[in-house]
Amino acid sequence: MKKDFKIVGFDADDTLWVNEPYYQEIEGEFIRLISVFADPEDIARDLHEREIDNLGIYGYGAKGFMLSMIETAVNISNGKVGGTHIAGIIAMGRDLINKPITLIEGVESVLRSLYDAGIKLIVATKGDLLDQERKLAKSGLSKYFDHIEIMSYKTDSEYQKMLGTLGIEPDDFLMVGNSMKSDIIPVLDIGGYAVYVPYHTTWAHELVENTGNLGNFHEIREMKELRDVLGL
Amino acid sequence: MKKDFKIVGFDADDTLWVNEPYYQEIEGEFIRLISVFADPEDIARDLHEREIDNLGIYGYGAKGFMLSMIETAVNISNGKVGGTHIAGIIAMGRDLINKPITLIEGVESVLRSLYDAGIKLIVATKGDLLDQERKLAKSGLSKYFDHIEIMSYKTDSEYQKMLGTLGIEPDDFLMVGNSMKSDIIPVLDIGGYAVYVPYHTTWAHELVENTGNLGNFHEIREMKELRDVLGL
Repeated sequence: MKKDFKIVGFDADDTLWVNEPYYQEIEGEFIRLISVFADPEDIARDLHEREIDNLGIYGYGAKGFMLSMIETAVNISNGKVGGTHIAGIIAMGRDLINKPITLIEGVESVLRSLYDAGIKLIVATKGDLLDQERKLAKSGLSKYFDHIEIMSYKTDSEYQKMLGTLGIEPDDFLMVGNSMKSDIIPVLDIGGYAVYVPYHTTWAHELVENTGNLGNFHEIREMKELRDVLGL
Repeated sequence: MKKDFKIVGFDADDTLWVNEPYYQEIEGEFIRLISVFADPEDIARDLHEREIDNLGIYGYGAKGFMLSMIETAVNISNGKVGGTHIAGIIAMGRDLINKPITLIEGVESVLRSLYDAGIKLIVATKGDLLDQERKLAKSGLSKYFDHIEIMSYKTDSEYQKMLGTLGIEPDDFLMVGNSMKSDIIPVLDIGGYAVYVPYHTTWAHELVENTGNLGNFHEIREMKELRDVLGL
């Protein structure tokens, strides 16, 4: 793989910092709270279906997750859920938003190496704008990044638009992330480069349906290996 | 005022399309629904205080408004609000998100004039990313805009960062909007130009505490006057 990129983009959640385990923790608390009304399995199924159905209207992020939990509570209880339970769900959501940031191992030292080598770094992430800006501020990593791009959906055309705004060609762009679907495939599709760093809770590798030019793709096991990929 | 700008930015809500009246309509429905638990005035006061308190955690937009309404319902009813009322609030919020787009008079023809004159146009707006992208798509105005910038807060430094990303100087940027606080003052502060188009439901003009260089500022009554300001 070539080594000179004008911009290297990083996904945020579960690439720079821990995210998914926090959602799983809150989901567990929610299911325990609402299990007075239904079986835990039924609650989990209703919530997961609802989250997917609601992506189009609420998008990614904590607020949409809160609203999906509230909708599940109303539905699964046949409207019998009361104010106290609703207040409990709101408190869980606020707790999720206010979680501390736990950086993934090796992230800060790799960012510092790239930054010191004069490579322009950006964050390109899905999720809620305010959530992600807050997380970046709390992470202490802001100083390494030139730009934060929040994307509603990480599609080919959204990446193309982003590169257009940044004024660079796909050939000068490398994306680093833990999701084949969001971080890797669309970037390869448009002619960019991508490094896949699976998160340790990504149990099964997602299927790669189209990896474009495979010479543009690299998989690493830990973030620190990114230095080798870039010859630093 | 000078007439040649590299980029003209437009605020979205209540500058390009109607927004505030829809929120007021839903707020009225919410207060009627919850008035079985408390006086309408107390409900309205609780909601307004909560919306302001919650801006830091939820930001602007429909999802934060939905969560604030739910919190008000729980609080004002002392936890007695039930699942049916909560379902009603969720339905109102979804209704708000799915409202049709009503363009403000003169907007489309003015955008067409600027676009045809070769001026690069962008949307620079607060609010929820997904909400605003959906509204822009529904508005039919996407074709005129080169870029949409969603800002958590419209501050001096956020505008500066945006212009940095776009690679232009403040002196080459004109911002058009209906809020002195968000669209006009910060842009003048950083040395840009601004045109203020108050929305008709802006009853009292907001106080202007710092208008920077007043030669950079222009107020118009209707969007179509923007053509004269730019000599088109």
